[in-house]
Amino acid sequence: MGTRMAGRDKSIYRKAKDYRWEGVAELPYKEDDRALFKSITRQVLFADPQLHGELRYFEMAPGGFSTLERHQHMHAVMILRGRGHCLVGEEVRAVETRDLVTVPAMTWHQFRATSGEPLGFLCMVNATRDKPELPSAEDLAKLERDAKIAAFLRNEPIA
Amino acid sequence: MGTRMAGRDKSIYRKAKDYRWEGVAELPYKEDDRALFKSITRQVLFADPQLHGELRYFEMAPGGFSTLERHQHMHAVMILRGRGHCLVGEEVRAVETRDLVTVPAMTWHQFRATSGEPLGFLCMVNATRDKPELPSAEDLAKLERDAKIAAFLRNEPIA
Repeated sequence: MGTRMAGRDKSIYRKAKDYRWEGVAELPYKEDDRALFKSITRQVLFADPQLHGELRYFEMAPGGFSTLERHQHMHAVMILRGRGHCLVGEEVRAVETRDLVTVPAMTWHQFRATSGEPLGFLCMVNATRDKPELPSAEDLAKLERDAKIAAFLRNEPIA
Repeated sequence: MGTRMAGRDKSIYRKAKDYRWEGVAELPYKEDDRALFKSITRQVLFADPQLHGELRYFEMAPGGFSTLERHQHMHAVMILRGRGHCLVGEEVRAVETRDLVTVPAMTWHQFRATSGEPLGFLCMVNATRDKPELPSAEDLAKLERDAKIAAFLRNEPIA
């Protein structure tokens, strides 16, 4: 998540076209064999040396999901497009456009486009931050003890 | 702009209802005799000691405007609602939903809801920042030498 490439655009005004922005590269995540994430893209909207925070836009296609991870730095999220579900800590919740989600330090979290439509969100983070940690088999087993979390992680419909 | 009152909500999930958020106070600016701003409210969406940035939402009613000011800290803006115009430095531009606006250091800027509809924007700033500076009569006279800026500042239709 570290590249600032897309943040080097020095234009004052950058037009939006739907959910793409002028001068902002859309960065797909390469999908790997471990299927840690699916059908998600990232656009870095603001990342300037004078800003202590960065603002990114992530979007998942229907059925897509972000990486299940945790880290010391906090995420400040606003859903910008569509609806879906997210896991933060020990709770799975439905989220929709403009809802706010705070991901505290060292808290497992994942977003899923569960509603047959794209799910897009803005995410503010500190410019200087630690690398995400992925769950061990034991961490996953612990999370899956909760039936709702287990269904969420298997991409099944959520009650 | 300094209060963190509204940022003390520690909920992980905060629902949106239109352009208001659960647990977030809507702070009107008291309108003063100098008419430095008009019909604008502020909601602090994220302001946590662990975040080096803050995310605020400002909304102007039709005909409303933000304070014309400048400061050392940078503004990173995304229009979230409606359309209008803004001045950044020496340029007035039409802006609409999801457009991005970067306000560099020590650059005069103002947003105006010029289109008969509300204009709302997200603004990311550094948590630690300097106080805004207001224009002197001389600064204003300098800005008004440009016909388009003069019309913008008088709230007249913009060509």
